[in-house]
Amino acid sequence: MHPGLSDSPFLAACNRRTPSRTPVWFMRQAGRALPEYRKLREGVGMLESCRRPDLTVEITMQPVRRMGTDAAIFFSDIVVPLAAVGIDLDIVAGTGPVIAEPVRDRAAVERIRALEPDDVPDITESVGRLVEELGATPLIGFAGAPFTLASYLVEGGPSRNHVRTKELMYGQPDVWHDLLDRLGTIAAAYLRVQVDAGASAIQLFDSWVGALSLADYRRYVMPHSAKVLAAVPDVPKIHFGVGTGELLGAMGEAGADVVGVDWRVELSDAVERIGPGKAVQGNLDPTLLFTPWSVVEGKVRDVVASGAAAEGHVFNLGHGVLPETDPDVLTRIVETVHQLPVPERPAGRTDTPVPAGR
Amino acid sequence: MHPGLSDSPFLAACNRRTPSRTPVWFMRQAGRALPEYRKLREGVGMLESCRRPDLTVEITMQPVRRMGTDAAIFFSDIVVPLAAVGIDLDIVAGTGPVIAEPVRDRAAVERIRALEPDDVPDITESVGRLVEELGATPLIGFAGAPFTLASYLVEGGPSRNHVRTKELMYGQPDVWHDLLDRLGTIAAAYLRVQVDAGASAIQLFDSWVGALSLADYRRYVMPHSAKVLAAVPDVPKIHFGVGTGELLGAMGEAGADVVGVDWRVELSDAVERIGPGKAVQGNLDPTLLFTPWSVVEGKVRDVVASGAAAEGHVFNLGHGVLPETDPDVLTRIVETVHQLPVPERPAGRTDTPVPAGR
Repeated sequence: MHPGLSDSPFLAACNRRTPSRTPVWFMRQAGRALPEYRKLREGVGMLESCRRPDLTVEITMQPVRRMGTDAAIFFSDIVVPLAAVGIDLDIVAGTGPVIAEPVRDRAAVERIRALEPDDVPDITESVGRLVEELGATPLIGFAGAPFTLASYLVEGGPSRNHVRTKELMYGQPDVWHDLLDRLGTIAAAYLRVQVDAGASAIQLFDSWVGALSLADYRRYVMPHSAKVLAAVPDVPKIHFGVGTGELLGAMGEAGADVVGVDWRVELSDAVERIGPGKAVQGNLDPTLLFTPWSVVEGKVRDVVASGAAAEGHVFNLGHGVLPETDPDVLTRIVETVHQLPVPERPAGRTDTPVPAGR
Repeated sequence: MHPGLSDSPFLAACNRRTPSRTPVWFMRQAGRALPEYRKLREGVGMLESCRRPDLTVEITMQPVRRMGTDAAIFFSDIVVPLAAVGIDLDIVAGTGPVIAEPVRDRAAVERIRALEPDDVPDITESVGRLVEELGATPLIGFAGAPFTLASYLVEGGPSRNHVRTKELMYGQPDVWHDLLDRLGTIAAAYLRVQVDAGASAIQLFDSWVGALSLADYRRYVMPHSAKVLAAVPDVPKIHFGVGTGELLGAMGEAGADVVGVDWRVELSDAVERIGPGKAVQGNLDPTLLFTPWSVVEGKVRDVVASGAAAEGHVFNLGHGVLPETDPDVLTRIVETVHQLPVPERPAGRTDTPVPAGR
């Protein structure tokens, strides 16, 4: 481990210690908002850019160099580990992942095999090179959570209503649990590869899980997400999904150290829902970045102030960077967050136990 | 008023009186899920079908005849009143509303004029004929709420992230408030036309408002929605949006008599957030209708049981009927809800004042 990492503001906040400054990174900071990314990706498919270490390393580094974020997020896609276990899929520009043969019955589920480190030597190599190059800046490993992976596999691609996914979930719960168990095993293995190669933290993305009620989340999803988080060794674990206001407490209970919050819920409210012993991450509305700077700056201050209610706060957006975003605005946000004083945490907070759920 | 209307289970539940049975209707019950609708719409554009009384009446009646729902919802589209005041738009199959010249600056906003009853004589005629034909079954009037109307106008069509809408809202708040004021005036006039012609209740749809945080909803939207609801005479007013778990209390405060709830929030939780003096509507997940009947039936019972926490409960889906839905499942749901005993309301509930907001 690089000796400078112990002073990392990002890791301090994740571990609910006082950071030297409020740490900031952006979901999807490596991506289409950056001209240098668009240039590098010219004529290169998404899957290829996730599997070629030269490209993965460069893309992951770009936003750190440009903006001075407090962490790098490993450039990958939710479906990369699925492709690595032999599922026939592609990532189509403008559409997203497309699965050749959607998974909708027991036989198809039983064909999904586990992921071995040997399936992804390129990931090990990319992470190793990144950790070397990043030095005192932590690298966050990345994987999609079982529910979201299942939605892609069952629907055959991105979906608005997840009709077939829920059909399987409610209609054939035993097949569903087998599917999520297998996907959880793959996600955990993919994260472990990254941590073993030197990643300092991980984020488990459950993009679509906000489509579920709390009761259904607890019954059909949470045990599998919890298994993934439990299977990852001792690094801070961030867990995030969009539209998860109802689920924040349960996502913390699933074993997250840091619960990601979208922009719909004030961070101070989120802290109440999540309970003590957790840090939070978020939650500036990414669409706000298209407004005049005075508006952005005011909202950045609001987010930092609201995050003061938490035992630890990692500044981020409440969802990924939109492709049309002006990257200079991102840089200004990093500078602004860094210049703001680190808020005082409420004294004695951890002495006031409250239920972790809502 | 038809004498039988006073016994309407739907109106009783809206008014928090004990209904003879739990009333049920479905958002988008008139539409593509019904083969008789698809037949009638062959070669007929959406706007035309909303403006030709023969079609509007027949389409509105179809689900009531087929399923025996406790209310009819006036067949219309959110953008119909916008077209009626001369905004150049079309509703494109598979896409939705397309606005010829998106509204993005003060000059464009100032060109939006008010709606007069003379702009929509066909609506008056359709509602009058429907009320006659429906007899003891109430007709619910329909309009889109200012935020959602604004999103269509500013974006130029349906939008996922509402980037330009929020750009205007945060960046030029005075232009924004002028826009929402004008749209609210149009929505209120459109609803008044329907009520004056005999509609027994109204639903104000704010499809996209779940994209906002509570603080922004209160600041940028709620006053305008409240003005619309206040401008509609003495009929029960339902107010609904998707993904509005954070906003339920405020949507009640805006002047709704009945707050519509999507499937993400248990009705009993929604009641806590909304506070006393309101009924609730919802909230079966529309994707559930693709699962085996035993699953659907169990969830229907759960929804009715959870709705017992409310002073009044109108059974509905938590979002509109999906086009691929089997209409026979809808009919079975109506029968099932009607056969279930009307739950006991918690005694003394209205004697326990709690804050209306969250």
